[in-house]
Amino acid sequence: MAMLFHSDNAASVHPAVWRAMQAADAPDASYDEDTLSARLDEAFSGLFGQDCAALWVATGTAANCLALASMVPPEGGVVCHHEAHIESDECGAPGFFLHGAKLMQAQGEGAKLTQQDIADVIDPIAVDVHRVQPYAVSITQASELGLVYKPDELGELTGYIQGKQLKLHIDGARFANAVAHLGCTPMEACSGADALSFGFVKNGGMGAEAIIFFDPAAADMIRYRRKRSGHLQSKGRFMAAQILALLEGNLWLDNARAANAAAREIAEAAQTRLIHPVEANEVFLQLTEGESAALRGEGFGFYERKGGARIVTSWNSPSDHVAALAKAIAAL
Amino acid sequence: MAMLFHSDNAASVHPAVWRAMQAADAPDASYDEDTLSARLDEAFSGLFGQDCAALWVATGTAANCLALASMVPPEGGVVCHHEAHIESDECGAPGFFLHGAKLMQAQGEGAKLTQQDIADVIDPIAVDVHRVQPYAVSITQASELGLVYKPDELGELTGYIQGKQLKLHIDGARFANAVAHLGCTPMEACSGADALSFGFVKNGGMGAEAIIFFDPAAADMIRYRRKRSGHLQSKGRFMAAQILALLEGNLWLDNARAANAAAREIAEAAQTRLIHPVEANEVFLQLTEGESAALRGEGFGFYERKGGARIVTSWNSPSDHVAALAKAIAAL
Amino acid sequence: MAMLFHSDNAASVHPAVWRAMQAADAPDASYDEDTLSARLDEAFSGLFGQDCAALWVATGTAANCLALASMVPPEGGVVCHHEAHIESDECGAPGFFLHGAKLMQAQGEGAKLTQQDIADVIDPIAVDVHRVQPYAVSITQASELGLVYKPDELGELTGYIQGKQLKLHIDGARFANAVAHLGCTPMEACSGADALSFGFVKNGGMGAEAIIFFDPAAADMIRYRRKRSGHLQSKGRFMAAQILALLEGNLWLDNARAANAAAREIAEAAQTRLIHPVEANEVFLQLTEGESAALRGEGFGFYERKGGARIVTSWNSPSDHVAALAKAIAAL
Amino acid sequence: MAMLFHSDNAASVHPAVWRAMQAADAPDASYDEDTLSARLDEAFSGLFGQDCAALWVATGTAANCLALASMVPPEGGVVCHHEAHIESDECGAPGFFLHGAKLMQAQGEGAKLTQQDIADVIDPIAVDVHRVQPYAVSITQASELGLVYKPDELGELTGYIQGKQLKLHIDGARFANAVAHLGCTPMEACSGADALSFGFVKNGGMGAEAIIFFDPAAADMIRYRRKRSGHLQSKGRFMAAQILALLEGNLWLDNARAANAAAREIAEAAQTRLIHPVEANEVFLQLTEGESAALRGEGFGFYERKGGARIVTSWNSPSDHVAALAKAIAAL
Repeated sequence: MAMLFHSDNAASVHPAVWRAMQAADAPDASYDEDTLSARLDEAFSGLFGQDCAALWVATGTAANCLALASMVPPEGGVVCHHEAHIESDECGAPGFFLHGAKLMQAQGEGAKLTQQDIADVIDPIAVDVHRVQPYAVSITQASELGLVYKPDELGELTGYIQGKQLKLHIDGARFANAVAHLGCTPMEACSGADALSFGFVKNGGMGAEAIIFFDPAAADMIRYRRKRSGHLQSKGRFMAAQILALLEGNLWLDNARAANAAAREIAEAAQTRLIHPVEANEVFLQLTEGESAALRGEGFGFYERKGGARIVTSWNSPSDHVAALAKAIAAL
Repeated sequence: MAMLFHSDNAASVHPAVWRAMQAADAPDASYDEDTLSARLDEAFSGLFGQDCAALWVATGTAANCLALASMVPPEGGVVCHHEAHIESDECGAPGFFLHGAKLMQAQGEGAKLTQQDIADVIDPIAVDVHRVQPYAVSITQASELGLVYKPDELGELTGYIQGKQLKLHIDGARFANAVAHLGCTPMEACSGADALSFGFVKNGGMGAEAIIFFDPAAADMIRYRRKRSGHLQSKGRFMAAQILALLEGNLWLDNARAANAAAREIAEAAQTRLIHPVEANEVFLQLTEGESAALRGEGFGFYERKGGARIVTSWNSPSDHVAALAKAIAAL
Repeated sequence: MAMLFHSDNAASVHPAVWRAMQAADAPDASYDEDTLSARLDEAFSGLFGQDCAALWVATGTAANCLALASMVPPEGGVVCHHEAHIESDECGAPGFFLHGAKLMQAQGEGAKLTQQDIADVIDPIAVDVHRVQPYAVSITQASELGLVYKPDELGELTGYIQGKQLKLHIDGARFANAVAHLGCTPMEACSGADALSFGFVKNGGMGAEAIIFFDPAAADMIRYRRKRSGHLQSKGRFMAAQILALLEGNLWLDNARAANAAAREIAEAAQTRLIHPVEANEVFLQLTEGESAALRGEGFGFYERKGGARIVTSWNSPSDHVAALAKAIAAL
Repeated sequence: MAMLFHSDNAASVHPAVWRAMQAADAPDASYDEDTLSARLDEAFSGLFGQDCAALWVATGTAANCLALASMVPPEGGVVCHHEAHIESDECGAPGFFLHGAKLMQAQGEGAKLTQQDIADVIDPIAVDVHRVQPYAVSITQASELGLVYKPDELGELTGYIQGKQLKLHIDGARFANAVAHLGCTPMEACSGADALSFGFVKNGGMGAEAIIFFDPAAADMIRYRRKRSGHLQSKGRFMAAQILALLEGNLWLDNARAANAAAREIAEAAQTRLIHPVEANEVFLQLTEGESAALRGEGFGFYERKGGARIVTSWNSPSDHVAALAKAIAAL
């Protein structure tokens, strides 16, 4: 039997999400003019404790790129880590949505950026029409390597970013896992951001992410851009329903906690092999090719990387699968 | 009680679609590498009786624009009716997806185009670098005004289009309704097209349309463009499931027949008021403002247009609502 | 011997322009950091009697599109006459420079727009994410059919445009001819414009036009866009030199007066054939095919149009050619 | 007195170029339909000993980006050195002209690329819709650091590139200097390229570069793109005239030889300070800040770089300036 740890993308939809979607299956206004979509701004404003505008889209790629489109003109640039999802896994989508704007690749430990990492990129850029000027920074919370920005790190970073007159986007495909790890409020986990891609698909949803604009006026133009990019679904009520179901009673946080706990269980069994600390729901560990093959032979599925593997847990990774994997790794 | 005839966009999801989506809710490969998505090419090749490649996307806008992106370079043009959805209702999405290519607006009865309508647009265009050159024609089957191209009309049209070395895209947001009306095969209803946006959302689906490429190789580049535009959903199996459920046992055709029948019932009661013949599931009728207000007062919802109204039926328009509306119109 | 009236594009370069270019042929800073380019803002601010920023580019297409890029976001629209150069003769350049923004075609007598012509386009556009929203109007002074907006017409029009919160661009490929005809100040001939494409190439220059931004801050972004579109020439001093030479002692106005006078001379001989009044340096007249052939047989070159011809004079149309053409037309 | 070595961009126009431009100052057809522009294909076909199509544009940025536009679709990528002009000095122009295609930055000694440098970039790219796929490589001959690809290096490189099904663009802003250094034929200096940006502006021209397409059919689409990007000048005869004048009697090669000789003279005096070998007309040398200041104090102008300086000579760098600089450096 297959025990799959490839990606939280592949996980099931939470029963509460199913129920909410089915409850939404009565005719209502099209697009985002339905009663559920209308509740999103308020729901997220409550969650974050400040006014914000929230737009649903089906994918993280669309969320990231539409968020960035509110910050960066076609002739501008976005500083991001060279392993950022927008840089390496979205088939150039930022180039499409931002009309040729430039991703400026920074280095940084664990796919995170520090003030210095950003400075290394932007300080050499002369203010000069020959050079693309930076307009924004995009970081990922939790990072592509499973690491989390702590509130004080974030505070320092955003102080620097704002001092440079740059905007901040946070790719929160696994924002829930970061908040669950930090034990802080959602706002503390993204403080200083101008826009957040708040992921739900990897966390019990089916096909709905939220773009949160902390300056609600910034969403106005993006509503047109969402339509223009084909992301304004006509039965939008089913997207809003997913998100509202996950917000209800903090189900999003419970799901993330479950995924994180599963990752920790595996991490504890793999301590000597960890490439990065495990702070969210991803475990990066060193494995020889033989060891990888052995695990695969026992029925475990995961992505291999140079000299190792990436194990991803999800909100409902079966506990027996998790325990079996932990045991198998320990036994290598 | 509200009896809504605004749009088939707003209708419910068919129970068979729900069942198929729920059956798809086991972990599977992400994106479009799942077992259901893998079945689409074959399913549509069977339906159309010829090899084709089929890609799901969430919206008709994305389907239309990605289909056109396979035909039209950024410096090219697309001839379409001035009331075509791509021209008037997609917030400039073709300009975005085609990188500034031009929509060339044609006139034509009932939002349909004839050979002459197209010639009126393209004949005056000198083959000259100062002028945008046409690369494709986009027509809508059934048209935005509820009219249908008959196979022989289509044959004549596509003969002309191919003779001009142009590609043909068909916006089939209501393709099912056209096929249901024509009683022909699906292939006969889109013969000569290079790509078809085959709509399912308005016809019992939730959020999945299919782009059909009759030259399967033309889909290769579009797979990248789909990702690049944020339309490659990570749990794509739920989109494939919707489409396969509607193809199963020709449910798509049954649904369209039901919608068409409801429209005909209303049309028969409104004969003297019809602005266009009713060939699909849309009824355009003349109403004074007072008459519109009267209908609204009786609980009917619909969009008003200059001097009239658009009534749209759907696969599950309640038969008592339909009968009531027919009666109310007849009684005006 | 050929007597050519095809286009003022084809005319010679004025001797004063040559002299100024040669005087600029000492090493100086590259791009637009030379001493001549630095004088443009002041020169045009003096000419227009108000602060403005002026950027050189080599072509009218670049001037028009970069000017519009300061006004219209990718998701927006520009209202223009359906015979406007940006719509019909620039190979879709606005779609390229504006990243897919839409040209919204208006009707209007003589390729001019009135308040009503604009209203006919924008009034039906619902403020709604499904529809491209207008951001600017572009008019041509003198128009593509050789007609001129009088200051009071312009005042009325710009009052309306500003009331609609739209920006105004003026394509002034033949702005000099308009000013020469009107006998007003340059500012009166473009009052209310946010940006003006001020043409010099058709009026004695070689390859330099000026984009005038009446809000100097609007030029800042366009300096980057100019570079990004490959229009920041490295020996920019030769472009500035052309423009400054034509501004010197109002040579631009003298040249335009000469071209206009030549057109008037022809127009007087063609009174009964005029399709449009002749207000600048273009004469549109009715000619049968036989008459066209006869003129061509006598050595005159010009573009034919349906049922007629376009005659364009330039700053140095030889007076004997002009007299000969006038005589030949009168004799038809 | 200023002795300027900032850039060959700033140099004068060669007298033969002036003469050719003035000879072109008779009315002729507009745009590129004149008799001079019509001669370019043949002139370059002769020079390269094979059929090619040649298009003039005013800037190297436009030449590079239009050449790349013939090779790379919007969803594709171009491998280039991280110090390539297209990457670092064109304000993101490739992103604009290629509609968001990605520049993939490679490392390499002296701003040159080897097979291995390219492999390091492209080998890790999975053939997968999530990743931008490479379509072309762009190298610079001579490189931004003044180094030259020898014919055998080029042969090896292009064998590899073609084996990977990639296209090759050569940025030849200083192609003349490379040919002059190599003493080979022009074709040997760019063998294997699909398109070449052949620079004339830095080498005695005023504002004209040539894009050479070694597959003439590849130019067809680019003629439209040139117009669409505002680069089809209306008095194109003056651009063709510049290029033809420099081709005449191999003036381009004489000019480059003169510039190279001047650079060698300086390099010989600076042997112990050279950062890179001097193979074209650029000298990169180590200088302390004090030494830089001393040279500036003696009247020499040049760009400083971290720990050193860039000295650029041109076709007419005054021999006394060159000798003086050589002497001053030797005396440091």
